[in-house]
Amino acid sequence: MSNQFKKEYIVVAQNASGRNMNVPLYRFIGQEPGPKVYIQSSIHGAEVQGNVVIYHLIQLLKKMPIRGEVILVPNCNPVGTNIKAGEYTLGRFDPVNGTNWNRGYFYDASLIEDFAQTVRNDEPISQIKQRFRQQIKHILASKLEEPWGIGLAQRLNLKLQQLAFDADFVLDLHNGPVSTRHIYVPEYAQKSASLFNIPHVILIPNKFAGALDEATFCPWWTLQDLVSQKRQQDVDFGVEAFTLEMGSQEVINFSEGEYDANSILSYLNGKGCLLQSDIHPETMRRVATYLKNYKVLYTQQGGMVEYLAKPGEVVKKGQPLAKLLNVDELDTENATELVVAQCDLIPILHFPSASILSGTQLYKCFTHYFEL
Amino acid sequence: MSNQFKKEYIVVAQNASGRNMNVPLYRFIGQEPGPKVYIQSSIHGAEVQGNVVIYHLIQLLKKMPIRGEVILVPNCNPVGTNIKAGEYTLGRFDPVNGTNWNRGYFYDASLIEDFAQTVRNDEPISQIKQRFRQQIKHILASKLEEPWGIGLAQRLNLKLQQLAFDADFVLDLHNGPVSTRHIYVPEYAQKSASLFNIPHVILIPNKFAGALDEATFCPWWTLQDLVSQKRQQDVDFGVEAFTLEMGSQEVINFSEGEYDANSILSYLNGKGCLLQSDIHPETMRRVATYLKNYKVLYTQQGGMVEYLAKPGEVVKKGQPLAKLLNVDELDTENATELVVAQCDLIPILHFPSASILSGTQLYKCFTHYFEL
Amino acid sequence: MSNQFKKEYIVVAQNASGRNMNVPLYRFIGQEPGPKVYIQSSIHGAEVQGNVVIYHLIQLLKKMPIRGEVILVPNCNPVGTNIKAGEYTLGRFDPVNGTNWNRGYFYDASLIEDFAQTVRNDEPISQIKQRFRQQIKHILASKLEEPWGIGLAQRLNLKLQQLAFDADFVLDLHNGPVSTRHIYVPEYAQKSASLFNIPHVILIPNKFAGALDEATFCPWWTLQDLVSQKRQQDVDFGVEAFTLEMGSQEVINFSEGEYDANSILSYLNGKGCLLQSDIHPETMRRVATYLKNYKVLYTQQGGMVEYLAKPGEVVKKGQPLAKLLNVDELDTENATELVVAQCDLIPILHFPSASILSGTQLYKCFTHYFEL
Amino acid sequence: MSNQFKKEYIVVAQNASGRNMNVPLYRFIGQEPGPKVYIQSSIHGAEVQGNVVIYHLIQLLKKMPIRGEVILVPNCNPVGTNIKAGEYTLGRFDPVNGTNWNRGYFYDASLIEDFAQTVRNDEPISQIKQRFRQQIKHILASKLEEPWGIGLAQRLNLKLQQLAFDADFVLDLHNGPVSTRHIYVPEYAQKSASLFNIPHVILIPNKFAGALDEATFCPWWTLQDLVSQKRQQDVDFGVEAFTLEMGSQEVINFSEGEYDANSILSYLNGKGCLLQSDIHPETMRRVATYLKNYKVLYTQQGGMVEYLAKPGEVVKKGQPLAKLLNVDELDTENATELVVAQCDLIPILHFPSASILSGTQLYKCFTHYFEL
Repeated sequence: MSNQFKKEYIVVAQNASGRNMNVPLYRFIGQEPGPKVYIQSSIHGAEVQGNVVIYHLIQLLKKMPIRGEVILVPNCNPVGTNIKAGEYTLGRFDPVNGTNWNRGYFYDASLIEDFAQTVRNDEPISQIKQRFRQQIKHILASKLEEPWGIGLAQRLNLKLQQLAFDADFVLDLHNGPVSTRHIYVPEYAQKSASLFNIPHVILIPNKFAGALDEATFCPWWTLQDLVSQKRQQDVDFGVEAFTLEMGSQEVINFSEGEYDANSILSYLNGKGCLLQSDIHPETMRRVATYLKNYKVLYTQQGGMVEYLAKPGEVVKKGQPLAKLLNVDELDTENATELVVAQCDLIPILHFPSASILSGTQLYKCFTHYFEL
Repeated sequence: MSNQFKKEYIVVAQNASGRNMNVPLYRFIGQEPGPKVYIQSSIHGAEVQGNVVIYHLIQLLKKMPIRGEVILVPNCNPVGTNIKAGEYTLGRFDPVNGTNWNRGYFYDASLIEDFAQTVRNDEPISQIKQRFRQQIKHILASKLEEPWGIGLAQRLNLKLQQLAFDADFVLDLHNGPVSTRHIYVPEYAQKSASLFNIPHVILIPNKFAGALDEATFCPWWTLQDLVSQKRQQDVDFGVEAFTLEMGSQEVINFSEGEYDANSILSYLNGKGCLLQSDIHPETMRRVATYLKNYKVLYTQQGGMVEYLAKPGEVVKKGQPLAKLLNVDELDTENATELVVAQCDLIPILHFPSASILSGTQLYKCFTHYFEL
Repeated sequence: MSNQFKKEYIVVAQNASGRNMNVPLYRFIGQEPGPKVYIQSSIHGAEVQGNVVIYHLIQLLKKMPIRGEVILVPNCNPVGTNIKAGEYTLGRFDPVNGTNWNRGYFYDASLIEDFAQTVRNDEPISQIKQRFRQQIKHILASKLEEPWGIGLAQRLNLKLQQLAFDADFVLDLHNGPVSTRHIYVPEYAQKSASLFNIPHVILIPNKFAGALDEATFCPWWTLQDLVSQKRQQDVDFGVEAFTLEMGSQEVINFSEGEYDANSILSYLNGKGCLLQSDIHPETMRRVATYLKNYKVLYTQQGGMVEYLAKPGEVVKKGQPLAKLLNVDELDTENATELVVAQCDLIPILHFPSASILSGTQLYKCFTHYFEL
Repeated sequence: MSNQFKKEYIVVAQNASGRNMNVPLYRFIGQEPGPKVYIQSSIHGAEVQGNVVIYHLIQLLKKMPIRGEVILVPNCNPVGTNIKAGEYTLGRFDPVNGTNWNRGYFYDASLIEDFAQTVRNDEPISQIKQRFRQQIKHILASKLEEPWGIGLAQRLNLKLQQLAFDADFVLDLHNGPVSTRHIYVPEYAQKSASLFNIPHVILIPNKFAGALDEATFCPWWTLQDLVSQKRQQDVDFGVEAFTLEMGSQEVINFSEGEYDANSILSYLNGKGCLLQSDIHPETMRRVATYLKNYKVLYTQQGGMVEYLAKPGEVVKKGQPLAKLLNVDELDTENATELVVAQCDLIPILHFPSASILSGTQLYKCFTHYFEL
């Protein structure tokens, strides 16, 4: 009893040669009905490890019967993947105008409020979900048809959002610069964090800041709150969305990718997407922090830097994070300078280059973290 | 009776060699008290013509007695000016992270509301202005001292804002890609638009979107409205701020720069900053449009393009704007394609390259424009 | 009696998505035998106007019977065309390693000497040409099969050279930065310079420096000399190759493109490639200089620059070429600096940006030029 | 009995703000006469580890009496160090024109031949050296004064060469992309290879390809050969120059830097530059190969890649080097592809990004290597 499998391509852009740039879409359809899952990778072009994760998911799903449907979209940004600037991939933003490739998804709070008005008290959840999806997808389609056109990144984002907004579970696979595994989890889905094999969890509020996970869960969360208020009882649309950061950008590692594929299957199994699977999350220490306590440490000075604290290590207040070299002062006692932790913290990622200007994001750190 | 003149440098960043990057500041102080003027140029590194305008302003102000003070900060972004990517200057955004160099200024609406509460009904305008300035500048200073640091672009912006927020008249000198002269004017200052020799005027609402002009006038406009409401009479803080776009980026032209310097002096004279000057605005046709009607035309396709409509020309609905070449179809009737105007419009600027991807900002156009 | 027409695509690379990047090839075959012509454009990605020229050539050749064969390869560098760095196209070199896209063609002087040894004294010219072509093309093929692989730019170049080395007349269509029309002509083909409608001619010696024109004519020129020496009489293989620089990069202009298409047809007619055509070169002043007298003027200082001398203008010794602005000296007499001509010259092109570092190629100039 | 110490700055360029860009120069002068040593680092801007090595050398030389003079020039390319393209440093070439920063040094074979003519049979070595240095330095100075100017990279190179050509021992400190320690050694100085603690040695012939080491030893080697021939006896000018590649670019590591500083001191001690030092090279396995056997493996395809073979590991013929992922074939057996070693080899460095186009330098490998 195996899944049905389909492969397609979606055109998302045209390059300067006038040629279509497309995105591959792999689709598994189970023999039993069930939730829809949408997983994409590499919206930031240098964050390639998600492609390996999807590769392993495809190998595993070939043999693993599912409920519902799983859509996998690797390499979902064919523009960003192919922009080299020096040896590395300049994948975070459009080189023409600086637009972050992960900030052009659609969200409109007032529209959700208007929709909530239309929900009858006795309307079944499944029907609300269907109507809401139709409405959002109708808007997405009309934005894509805007007669004056829309920007490159926005078109790419809306095309992907058309697929994602149809899904119940949305996973956006990213990487940090030099990074340990971490995951962004909406506060309401905190329990799901433990279904992944990811030790660091950032709990985020209901605030749209442009990314796909937010563009997916903010509307449902908002609608859920509004309908719950109206009905004076908790309704639950059962939609969840996460951004998974699976290590460092510019790295492909097949065995780590298999580990993360199993981590994702463990989540999907927990959500009832798999038939007869015994994949379960690992027993591990998971620490979490609220988004407001996930802090960026910016450099005050420029120079060259050794990263002393490794991502994932516990660092105590006063311990060194980094050591800077100042080439103009090699003969003086100002030749080197230590950057120390201002409080207890766990560095999650650091800047990938040894050369920094002042105002560089040196580290991002968990502070005030707690065990899940 | 000449002005006092001072020259200083402000450190705004450090580069990877650990060396300070600074900004020159030229200051003229009149013998009579009067308004403060702040003029900066080249926050976007490729938009260099403002530096020539400031050069001419300095030559002219050497001989022209002023009231109050004029601060001139050319080349205000020493990072952006010096980033080459190929032969051109990659000046609009930080190449590390895509951050627009003109979007990190401080604005906090709730703070203005709080401040408005503290205004007594009989507090003189000058005292309100002084107190408000002190408070904002206090916040700017504390943000610059943030123990976890702040980003490169934000530090640069706040350092400049410290100077600008002290001023009554703020001019931020920019250029478009390939562009005709135009100016962004807050709706409340529409009358001042005719003091400049600039034929195209965009009227913008009281909405902060990150730029210096908005960071300057939005707080005053908001405070003005709140205090006026409270007092049930119109108060006027007399602060104005504009973004001037003086032609195309990547161009230095001394005679055009002299023309724009005189245009600015004409505005300053209209505002009482000059003593015994007879510089007046030219008699010219000025057309304006509201920001919502200043529309971007994005390309639907990629290819190579001839820009048929020149910036500043009146284009009628249906007339051609651009002609695209598709290199894969040179033998078919799809070899070329015309992009036509969807309504009557005036193209103000167009993309500076002949090679475009889909979703490129081909033109920005005045629609529904009217004569001032 | 019309030409036969074919269209194909050649794969020249694969991008990071693992997808083929290809080049379109348009081929016209006449009903009468005759010379082979090879024309390519945009090996430097920002030099796009050649694509328009080829567009017009295709329109014209549809109705114009030819002898032999004409191969047209527009947009011959699908990698370079599609690299944006800011709004412009970073088309001159591979962004990964700086390799100029026009320097990887094959040339081996000793091989030509060896081949010359094999030429019998009574071997007909046509047979020598055929044998020599076979040998070179055999080497090109084996280089493309090199088991350790070859670099991206080199593969692209060799793939194109396989087509070009088969031809008798090779035209490589380029553009300068900001430039007037000029053409590189091998000294032995000086007479052909007047068959084009191009007013500025650079006469180049028999020295391979990496470009396609040299990779084409240097082998034939060298072989011609060796065989002529051996036979004690002039032999002529009738092969010519030129680099045409048809104005400025980053510009598409259809009417200028039609002018250049006619200029090329005038050359081809002069070479017997057209049947019953009455296209002839225009009567015009043409000036030439030897390559050694085509001089680069580098800046001694950094700053911002107005280009006072326009490409193509006659400039006398001592006249100004450019005016620099120094933003740190706007109040002193060092605010501006003139760069003047050190001898009589014609500027042919200048740098396309107003911002320069020291050591920038400000102008390239004809010195010691003469009328053709 | 300590060394004399001096610090200076050399201006090597001006940026677009019109400001000088300079290079720090640290100089130790011993109390006893002896050889001159010149060490520079970071001519390629992303190869920063040499700066740490020089930092440690300075700490060590403060306490260690020397013979002669040691000049240390860290961060010798202030332009290249400060060019960011995305988060990384685009340090190998000028972003304006692609010029490699390490290829503009002066070399002229015919000039050396002419000089050799002037050497009298009884002229002492020291006098020949002094005269030759004077002549080369005279030429360097006149090139820097060229009235039409010279390019940015060339000026930087010649300024540094003025310092280097004065020295007897020249060390140019580099890094590979992702790399193990290796060193380029001229064949005539093979014995000196064992004075460094560097396990991989590339032996290079007397052929100038543009780098500083060649620009230093090629003239002396050529002159040595010519004078030896003339005198029918071996003369030895005692000049050596090396390029040291000390690990990976974009990495600062203080303890590894101290190790390399000691390795360099071990060489200098072996050459008599240190007084009473007992620093000696480590006993270690050193393998060497000739430059022609130091082979680049280019990719035949584009895609995403895991680097399976680590730099420095012995790899047997047929063993895997890398595994590629093809995102369009994740469901087929072409999803992954192994790149295997074509012969026994040691990979020395590999490309630093996981995303590659076809024709990328995947690995550089020692083949036909042997123990020193």
